[in-house]
Amino acid sequence: MKAYEIIEIIENFAPKELAIVGDNVGLQVGDNLDKEVNKLGIALDPSLNVIKKAKKEGVDFLFTHHPILKNPIKNFTGIMYEKLKILMENDIILYSAHTNLDICKDGLNDALAELYKLKDVENLYENGLGRVGIFEGSFEELLDITKKYIVESPVVVGNIDGDNFKLAVLSGYGLSQDAIRYVAEKADVYLSGDLTHHSKILAEELGLVVVDGTHYGTEVYGLRKFMDYLKDMVDCEVVSLDF
Amino acid sequence: MKAYEIIEIIENFAPKELAIVGDNVGLQVGDNLDKEVNKLGIALDPSLNVIKKAKKEGVDFLFTHHPILKNPIKNFTGIMYEKLKILMENDIILYSAHTNLDICKDGLNDALAELYKLKDVENLYENGLGRVGIFEGSFEELLDITKKYIVESPVVVGNIDGDNFKLAVLSGYGLSQDAIRYVAEKADVYLSGDLTHHSKILAEELGLVVVDGTHYGTEVYGLRKFMDYLKDMVDCEVVSLDF
Amino acid sequence: MKAYEIIEIIENFAPKELAIVGDNVGLQVGDNLDKEVNKLGIALDPSLNVIKKAKKEGVDFLFTHHPILKNPIKNFTGIMYEKLKILMENDIILYSAHTNLDICKDGLNDALAELYKLKDVENLYENGLGRVGIFEGSFEELLDITKKYIVESPVVVGNIDGDNFKLAVLSGYGLSQDAIRYVAEKADVYLSGDLTHHSKILAEELGLVVVDGTHYGTEVYGLRKFMDYLKDMVDCEVVSLDF
Amino acid sequence: MKAYEIIEIIENFAPKELAIVGDNVGLQVGDNLDKEVNKLGIALDPSLNVIKKAKKEGVDFLFTHHPILKNPIKNFTGIMYEKLKILMENDIILYSAHTNLDICKDGLNDALAELYKLKDVENLYENGLGRVGIFEGSFEELLDITKKYIVESPVVVGNIDGDNFKLAVLSGYGLSQDAIRYVAEKADVYLSGDLTHHSKILAEELGLVVVDGTHYGTEVYGLRKFMDYLKDMVDCEVVSLDF
Amino acid sequence: MKAYEIIEIIENFAPKELAIVGDNVGLQVGDNLDKEVNKLGIALDPSLNVIKKAKKEGVDFLFTHHPILKNPIKNFTGIMYEKLKILMENDIILYSAHTNLDICKDGLNDALAELYKLKDVENLYENGLGRVGIFEGSFEELLDITKKYIVESPVVVGNIDGDNFKLAVLSGYGLSQDAIRYVAEKADVYLSGDLTHHSKILAEELGLVVVDGTHYGTEVYGLRKFMDYLKDMVDCEVVSLDF
Amino acid sequence: MKAYEIIEIIENFAPKELAIVGDNVGLQVGDNLDKEVNKLGIALDPSLNVIKKAKKEGVDFLFTHHPILKNPIKNFTGIMYEKLKILMENDIILYSAHTNLDICKDGLNDALAELYKLKDVENLYENGLGRVGIFEGSFEELLDITKKYIVESPVVVGNIDGDNFKLAVLSGYGLSQDAIRYVAEKADVYLSGDLTHHSKILAEELGLVVVDGTHYGTEVYGLRKFMDYLKDMVDCEVVSLDF
Ligand SMILES: [Fe+2]
Ligand SMILES: [Fe+2]
Ligand SMILES: [Fe+2]
Ligand SMILES: [Fe+2]
Ligand SMILES: [Fe+2]
Ligand SMILES: [Fe+2]
Repeated sequence: MKAYEIIEIIENFAPKELAIVGDNVGLQVGDNLDKEVNKLGIALDPSLNVIKKAKKEGVDFLFTHHPILKNPIKNFTGIMYEKLKILMENDIILYSAHTNLDICKDGLNDALAELYKLKDVENLYENGLGRVGIFEGSFEELLDITKKYIVESPVVVGNIDGDNFKLAVLSGYGLSQDAIRYVAEKADVYLSGDLTHHSKILAEELGLVVVDGTHYGTEVYGLRKFMDYLKDMVDCEVVSLDF
Repeated sequence: MKAYEIIEIIENFAPKELAIVGDNVGLQVGDNLDKEVNKLGIALDPSLNVIKKAKKEGVDFLFTHHPILKNPIKNFTGIMYEKLKILMENDIILYSAHTNLDICKDGLNDALAELYKLKDVENLYENGLGRVGIFEGSFEELLDITKKYIVESPVVVGNIDGDNFKLAVLSGYGLSQDAIRYVAEKADVYLSGDLTHHSKILAEELGLVVVDGTHYGTEVYGLRKFMDYLKDMVDCEVVSLDF
Repeated sequence: MKAYEIIEIIENFAPKELAIVGDNVGLQVGDNLDKEVNKLGIALDPSLNVIKKAKKEGVDFLFTHHPILKNPIKNFTGIMYEKLKILMENDIILYSAHTNLDICKDGLNDALAELYKLKDVENLYENGLGRVGIFEGSFEELLDITKKYIVESPVVVGNIDGDNFKLAVLSGYGLSQDAIRYVAEKADVYLSGDLTHHSKILAEELGLVVVDGTHYGTEVYGLRKFMDYLKDMVDCEVVSLDF
Repeated sequence: MKAYEIIEIIENFAPKELAIVGDNVGLQVGDNLDKEVNKLGIALDPSLNVIKKAKKEGVDFLFTHHPILKNPIKNFTGIMYEKLKILMENDIILYSAHTNLDICKDGLNDALAELYKLKDVENLYENGLGRVGIFEGSFEELLDITKKYIVESPVVVGNIDGDNFKLAVLSGYGLSQDAIRYVAEKADVYLSGDLTHHSKILAEELGLVVVDGTHYGTEVYGLRKFMDYLKDMVDCEVVSLDF
Repeated sequence: MKAYEIIEIIENFAPKELAIVGDNVGLQVGDNLDKEVNKLGIALDPSLNVIKKAKKEGVDFLFTHHPILKNPIKNFTGIMYEKLKILMENDIILYSAHTNLDICKDGLNDALAELYKLKDVENLYENGLGRVGIFEGSFEELLDITKKYIVESPVVVGNIDGDNFKLAVLSGYGLSQDAIRYVAEKADVYLSGDLTHHSKILAEELGLVVVDGTHYGTEVYGLRKFMDYLKDMVDCEVVSLDF
Repeated sequence: MKAYEIIEIIENFAPKELAIVGDNVGLQVGDNLDKEVNKLGIALDPSLNVIKKAKKEGVDFLFTHHPILKNPIKNFTGIMYEKLKILMENDIILYSAHTNLDICKDGLNDALAELYKLKDVENLYENGLGRVGIFEGSFEELLDITKKYIVESPVVVGNIDGDNFKLAVLSGYGLSQDAIRYVAEKADVYLSGDLTHHSKILAEELGLVVVDGTHYGTEVYGLRKFMDYLKDMVDCEVVSLDF
């Protein structure tokens, strides 16, 4: 299958226009989109380890959720040199769908909404990130699902009694202090990743229950679903590289 | 003892001029520094819980490491209303020494340097934050100290063989991606707090071993030392409120 | 009457959405909007004197035109400490309607337009601030009205002969140099407040007649009308505190 | 006398380097500094009236305290066209010494310090603007001097008993809210110009006594002294144009 | 003919609203638009030479394509003094139509499109600048037209075989590196002015053929057409001053 | 010879600290500075052609005056992909000395000063760029030198009679309007590159004689000298690639 055909499939699923302003989505490293792809690798991060593994596995198209760079560069040395050299010498195309994959229908956020069987689901933010809806079970049941599908030992801040509370979910890093303040107005419980000290204190003060399913755990759950989708759609081998 | 006398003692230990630009240090809430202080409370955070406890314990001077606000406000409602009301109604002075206490001699960073018995210690940053020196034991021994004095189960990224490696320590939040890049040039192992996903990936790529002793753990260790110092110096009761 | 009911009445009259961008309108200091209000105080400024008087008079809801802060703060000492302490200890809610009250129908600008019986009235600015229309009398008559209702001895720049000239009015501070340049294109005479040296020189150069009715005088005129409105609408005692 | 010789005399008195950053001082309009000057005009403002009068009086070098423009322009129409045309057609050089004349030895601020016979005089600001020292008389005496030499009916905020208080003086506009806050820490009484509503309220709250001698009055007093100096120094006729 | 009538004719042809944001178009120097115009001068630049020539020729309305200033000023000395003095002393109105004349129907860009007989012409940029279409001849023929009507010896980067290629044209300066990158996606050959080193290298790398017809040549071609138009429309003598 | 040894030689000649703020100097693309260099290529630009030629010639260390990027990037496609791929696949190190080579002793600017045998040479700018001194011949002689050593047909603006005038030289692009204004105060004649329309007009107005020796010509002259220096110093073959 041609590289541009794979890109068409990805972009039909996660249109680039959905990405938030300033995000780095789409083709990251590559030139010849006409080349034949025999093996498609999928990973959360284009880390050096993932790129080395892609080479070792004979991957010729590497899809990652996170882009290769957030801040641009003008010198090519060290780790970036190593990464680019491996990709270029082995003709591995690197392509990312980041916030567009978080936001799109059946993307990473919808995957979480579905996992927790949320009712009356709405977008958490106007830009399409996150979901919020009614979780019909108890907090115990919520933690059981989290431990089974997201991360073995989630960090938990607070507690809530009874069933049928409002649950917000956001894949990846959603636990800045601004986010805590915002979500406290919208939900009773908030599942996301990368909890840090000041956000924890703030959640306690505001009475927002927080479940830190880790950045990795909250994104890889939906990424597996997306891999299954790609396996159905593309006409080549598909392998996962960091999950 | 008068409030201004306590402030003199604190500022002799942690001069305000040491604080980094833009930090909010010194008197946070208070008017009458002439008032008699009978009970001094100490905490990491001026959280709502800490402030309620201060009232309950009859504290009339509350010292915290973190300031009450990083970003300024112009309306007084919700949690901030509650905090200010309790402090004002109960005549509790709130005073913070933040990065000046991290930086100063025998402050939070020096406490970590001493705990790990670093040799040839230097400041990690030009502004005085952090310390770096030779740790003379093995990585196992480093983790033992960490588990005993900082946090029970530290998150660890990487590993290092042998003794006598360079260890950097920084109390609180020192694990941004920029910090990881900076410290990777200066040390083999880095102890600090609030590790998140992208920093972990970057540390792996750069071969920097990271020990996340938590924001809380890496700051409270030195804060206890500072409380001991205050107990010796001030002429009133001293109580800890969140550690 | 409940505090939130009073707020509803105010906001029906002066909707918050009318305020110009960055203005600080609405609830300034307060937490419990469910509390019973027995005495409503009204003032131009939430000055220390007004707040002390509010306490002395037993006011439990203080309405002011000017907000408590234009620029935000992160420490609470001195005058702000005093103000907040009095408000919080005495459970006085502070609420402001600023540019929304200038702009709204029957607000401070409409009050001036009505006082001078302007014909063919239009908004002076696109954002709704100020009014401009035909004043059907002479400049002498305009000054008589001003002296009787706005301020005893207005400062006057220039003069105009005859009747039926274009008069612009703007409550409060409308006499910046940019404003003088703008209004000189729209009107013959301009009534507003806070005239300073460079604006006076510019008005002379541009041939714009300026009447400085003072910031206080041009705002308090309409504020009295608004107090009358509130007296009719709310179910509690209403007192004025600085006019 | 040549124009450049007059400029040398002015700049020896008020060196351009003293001006605050961004101020527009020195040659404002002019080309040929070699031309013979027969009549030197002095004014506070390069207003249209002053420029017309300069032409009428046959002035060929116009010195003003305020510069012709604070904000730059790129089109030349209206009032600015008129001003430039008169200056250029009549070969009138326009030259300004603004904050350098406020700041310099025996400049506008020193003139005020001398008028009030301040003792232990220091600069009010680090950049050299304003003066502060001990006024040895009573507040009544201070007002008498003000009425006699600065302005007939000064606006006064507050009052102070007894003799020997700290008086700050600043020529021109010194009554912003930031200035009030700053001076309240340095002096008991503050004489400057262009008082507006919010500054008045703030001065009352902070207990700073303010005397508004007007922008014009506080600057023209020293400007007369400077005119006397020029009369002694230059070899041509000297006339005042707006004072 | 009155000055304002000439301005109406110009603005009907090149409406000011078409100009790009921040451009300085319209009346540059002038006050009395009621004055009778006997001689209209046209030039590319309001250079000192052009202005001197305008005076010498008895021009009383000077139209230029380039505005008198791009960056605003607040002192009037040197060359700008000379220019303004000549204009003002001789009552010469200066008026510019810059990017509005590039963009408008039958303006400078349309003139180029017509010269090269482009088919299927579209605007090159969304803001209306530039044109792009099919050139039906060979590259040799394109160069022949350029040499005959634009500039004797154009600088040429690259080459293209065959007929019927896409040609982009932009009057004036269109050869920044960003422009080269943009046009390389839209055309095979690009005619504009002011080619510099880095743009040349980039064009070579991207395979974009560039013809530098000079800033002057690419603008004066259409300016002559516009002069012809004015000659037909205005009721006074028309002379060209720098072409 | 090792790559790092070559870099030492370059940096001894043109220390990186000399470069102006924000310039991109030093290692551009490369990782292993320990590798053996057999062939050193030199060019003005790291253009695609130069990089292809470097590969073809078996160059393993490419020195260029211009850096590979001025503005940073975060995606690697198109021309940049091609350039990086060739460099990385062929282990070609790319290293640039830009403004540090312009500025340093015996660098590109000194080479021009020497060519024209300037007397009493000084730096043109405080940052070290450019040179200015007395040219002892006539303008004819200056043009002869230029035509012989810099560029065959320089573009010339203006003319100057007699001998012994002040000549400013600046390698590369030195002909912005700001530069013209600056140099007009310092010199009679200015040699630099990349002249464009508005700068030409301004030079005429200010009476500054400009000789455009082209960006390429004014830099390659000194670059040849630097190549000669490297040939003497390094222990490997040296080839020029675009001059
Ligand atoms: Fe993520
Ligand atoms: Fe901290
Ligand atoms: Fe107001
Ligand atoms: Fe002034
Ligand atoms: Fe142009
Ligand atoms: Fe260059």
